[in-house]
Amino acid sequence: MSVVRIALAQVDLVVGDLDANCAMVRERVGQAAEAGAQLVVFPEMTLTGYPPEDLVLRQSFRQASCAALTRLATELAAAGQGDIAVVVGYLDSEGGPRNAAAFVQDGQVVARYFKHHLPNYGVFDESRYFKAGAELSVVHFGGVDIGLTICEDVWQDGGPFAAAAAAEVGLLVNINGSPYERDKDDVRLSLVRRRAVEAGAAVVYVNQCGAQDELVFDGDSFAVGADGQLLARAPQFVEGLFLLELELPASTGNTVSQAGELSVGRYRAPKPPRPLSEELAEPLGIADRLQDEAEVWGALVVGTRDYVVKNGFSSVVLGMSGGIDSAVVAAIAADAIGGANVHGVALPSDYSSAHSLADAAELAANLGAPLQTVPIAPMVSAFVESLKLTGLAEENVQARVRGTTLMGLSNQHGHLVLATGNKSELSVGYSTIYGDAVGGFAPIKDVPKTLVWKLARWRNAEATRRGETAPIPENSITKPPSAELRPGQLDTDSLPDYEVLDELLAHYVDGDAGFSDLLALGFDEELAARVTRMTDAAEWKRRQYPPGPKISLKAFGRDRRLPITNRWREHGVS
Amino acid sequence: MSVVRIALAQVDLVVGDLDANCAMVRERVGQAAEAGAQLVVFPEMTLTGYPPEDLVLRQSFRQASCAALTRLATELAAAGQGDIAVVVGYLDSEGGPRNAAAFVQDGQVVARYFKHHLPNYGVFDESRYFKAGAELSVVHFGGVDIGLTICEDVWQDGGPFAAAAAAEVGLLVNINGSPYERDKDDVRLSLVRRRAVEAGAAVVYVNQCGAQDELVFDGDSFAVGADGQLLARAPQFVEGLFLLELELPASTGNTVSQAGELSVGRYRAPKPPRPLSEELAEPLGIADRLQDEAEVWGALVVGTRDYVVKNGFSSVVLGMSGGIDSAVVAAIAADAIGGANVHGVALPSDYSSAHSLADAAELAANLGAPLQTVPIAPMVSAFVESLKLTGLAEENVQARVRGTTLMGLSNQHGHLVLATGNKSELSVGYSTIYGDAVGGFAPIKDVPKTLVWKLARWRNAEATRRGETAPIPENSITKPPSAELRPGQLDTDSLPDYEVLDELLAHYVDGDAGFSDLLALGFDEELAARVTRMTDAAEWKRRQYPPGPKISLKAFGRDRRLPITNRWREHGVS
Repeated sequence: MSVVRIALAQVDLVVGDLDANCAMVRERVGQAAEAGAQLVVFPEMTLTGYPPEDLVLRQSFRQASCAALTRLATELAAAGQGDIAVVVGYLDSEGGPRNAAAFVQDGQVVARYFKHHLPNYGVFDESRYFKAGAELSVVHFGGVDIGLTICEDVWQDGGPFAAAAAAEVGLLVNINGSPYERDKDDVRLSLVRRRAVEAGAAVVYVNQCGAQDELVFDGDSFAVGADGQLLARAPQFVEGLFLLELELPASTGNTVSQAGELSVGRYRAPKPPRPLSEELAEPLGIADRLQDEAEVWGALVVGTRDYVVKNGFSSVVLGMSGGIDSAVVAAIAADAIGGANVHGVALPSDYSSAHSLADAAELAANLGAPLQTVPIAPMVSAFVESLKLTGLAEENVQARVRGTTLMGLSNQHGHLVLATGNKSELSVGYSTIYGDAVGGFAPIKDVPKTLVWKLARWRNAEATRRGETAPIPENSITKPPSAELRPGQLDTDSLPDYEVLDELLAHYVDGDAGFSDLLALGFDEELAARVTRMTDAAEWKRRQYPPGPKISLKAFGRDRRLPITNRWREHGVS
Repeated sequence: MSVVRIALAQVDLVVGDLDANCAMVRERVGQAAEAGAQLVVFPEMTLTGYPPEDLVLRQSFRQASCAALTRLATELAAAGQGDIAVVVGYLDSEGGPRNAAAFVQDGQVVARYFKHHLPNYGVFDESRYFKAGAELSVVHFGGVDIGLTICEDVWQDGGPFAAAAAAEVGLLVNINGSPYERDKDDVRLSLVRRRAVEAGAAVVYVNQCGAQDELVFDGDSFAVGADGQLLARAPQFVEGLFLLELELPASTGNTVSQAGELSVGRYRAPKPPRPLSEELAEPLGIADRLQDEAEVWGALVVGTRDYVVKNGFSSVVLGMSGGIDSAVVAAIAADAIGGANVHGVALPSDYSSAHSLADAAELAANLGAPLQTVPIAPMVSAFVESLKLTGLAEENVQARVRGTTLMGLSNQHGHLVLATGNKSELSVGYSTIYGDAVGGFAPIKDVPKTLVWKLARWRNAEATRRGETAPIPENSITKPPSAELRPGQLDTDSLPDYEVLDELLAHYVDGDAGFSDLLALGFDEELAARVTRMTDAAEWKRRQYPPGPKISLKAFGRDRRLPITNRWREHGVS
């Protein structure tokens, strides 16, 4: 048996910024060296960021990625870190674009592995981009045989884990860009456990921590033994370098060249690993999993922070209506970039309740957020008089005047506008396009209304637990929801009770349930017909909605691709 | 040799409307029967419409498609049309969702074929949806062996055409949902010719005619002989039933069961084909191909008409600025749904030129379109005064007041709003989100500015040729383009000359050229740096832009999937 000291680099990446990603790798390898690590493992597509989408189709980008890898190997050696083995993800172009992992040591790319299973469902389009690999790369390092694998390889039967079993590998490294999804995490662990047992090898699973457009990566890196036992687990949503030692079986010297679906390529690291030193920092234990609301909150904060910061903004602006949605969005933004950078705008109309302004002011005060008030009556009157608008057209003008106001302040002051719509509204089209739908980012677009309330309560309780001021005004949580676009209007005038609506939408939107499925689940026929029809009819509006963090099984966006022109009606009547 | 009389059903489909698509098939089969056809061939996914996108993931939809096929077979027989053989596309679910073709005769589904090559590039995501087929279905009908294939099967080497050669098939049917793209059409013909020669069989190629969201299908159905000679070709953008007779070799009785990559399944039609009758309507000749501008105009008109009509609208509204973009969009809309249904709105500001209103009025008069004038000063002043806006923020408010005005009129009167932006503007972000970008559909979003001018000149010349009034005011074509958002503003203040810009964008956007490629092509370094940077920075705006017809190699939308958060810069400086 050999002991190998491994650093799991649970890091954030920036898509397209090869230089910054390489600099981050060098910095983390330096830290790992100080902590006495022998092997450092980075996430999937470390150098390019993940997912790079159609950048992969550019030859210039593919070449830059390959060049960056070579340069990184040289720079690590030049910095005196050649004796540490580093596994990084990158974009290769051998025989076609490849989602690749490299094993780097002593200034050399010792081995490369090309992802075998390419996901092409949900948010993933990897068959669009990559050619699949056909070889398991095994590196003999420190007396141990180490196999490289990437993300989806662990989700599908056959492939590299079967090959690893035949090749009697001691350790499998699995590098990931695995997006956060509610309730998904235990699946990761149970899958990896199963693969470890199948392969008869320990598995080190490393995932990105950060966000890219609509995807949030929660980290949650871990290691399991060859018996499937969980040995160590990093906390979710915490970037860092996590250290552990694994006792691994000695190489069998097995030279099997064909195993499972893949052939096996064998490589030898140029030098024995650096000797184990004593200065191991606190080794990684088994971090507790976050509870549901804490986990979702973490995802929304990271998703919002990374979108804002990576797109070069330092402040945001949003309408503060006194309602629950804008309060929760403001609180997320405050946790992401600090309350002082969250610019609230109260936009009262003639139909706004007395409590709206008071609740908005309380929220802003709790968050330390600047608040300004812009009454919309002068602009609304100008439109209504010029255009003779009535009814819904007049309601929508109010929302659009608010949207134009926020965009005006954004243009004038450089803030990113946050849209405050939730998933329930977005599903049934209960929002005004170019009105409340205005924004560069929409933090709660994948959060159903009932969960918005739960998150508000959880965040307030969390503040109380920490001895801080609860950020969200109690009145915003308890008052009946209203768009306040006409006197006395309530959401329940047009929509069913949110408890029922959200349950129905979870089946229809997230679960692809058909009409008969909905009836079998006990939903009222008229209600199911109405909600499915409203959802179908709102597709065109969703297409123009800003991006926001995916937290559900099926988020609007890349994840759910329905035609706009679509006469399929679940209840059978067009 | 046997003679088979074939009707090419070059028809329009509606995604999701199984009942309407089946009714259309029954009606067309009735017409084909009257014309003495023995075999009628419909496009890919006839019953579901194409592409059905994520509807495929719904079990309810898959079941409905299978049930519709069975019902269609029964109904055709009940209507006395059982003796005609009908090839239709549909969604099957045997062993997973299938992009399928059925050979129907005498109330029976005689044979089914599952598409072998699944395109997963450009606008296509078929690996997301379908399981690939592994059998070539050959039906013995009228003494001839007829093989079924679908669309992409003709674009890839190997697969059913190789299998058909080994099986010595006499005729291959290829059903398509092949989107229009400039300059693509000759590729289709030359490919099919090659496959015909490879297979040693005549090929009948049938394509949809109509539009679905961003895709336009131009028809262009045709037949080639086993020697690769073009025998007949239907006109582009014309829906209809086109008749031809093919003299085909008798079945060899070859029972090869394994050929090429696919096995071969053999089926026998239950009845001999209906006898050839004398009443063949005018047989299909070889239609001339349209010239470039005529073809693009046809695509834009069909794309706009189908989007408007299939989404339940009968009228559109747009801002008429007097400029070339809105003039061309209005003329396209008038050709699509009639000038009387095109509602123009002049939205003059203090910065509008004297000619703006006059040019808009002339355009509306030429098209027979109603025009109303709404001065935007009162609304703009209300915003500028409330928010103390200056510079770009003030310019944008003008555009957004126009957008909100158009949306107000849309809400009040039920018109669909058309956005008038062109591809050059959309590329470099020279448009105001929630301003001129407002709309349900954007007819020229994939048309570069230089082509907009060419189309205007072509359309006017076409009118003159037909002895009609040229629709587009000469002044709109010749005056220097300006957004008129500040005094004396011209596009050339912020943008390079459109001739240069469009050429550069064709390489960068459509061609995925890198920076060094652009320099090698002779573009100025500073210009290339500026334009690529502007294009990258506008991705977030494009994501919220309405859909519009794809006419280029790479349209914004499903066709080009770049990350918003993206620090890759072609000129190497972030």
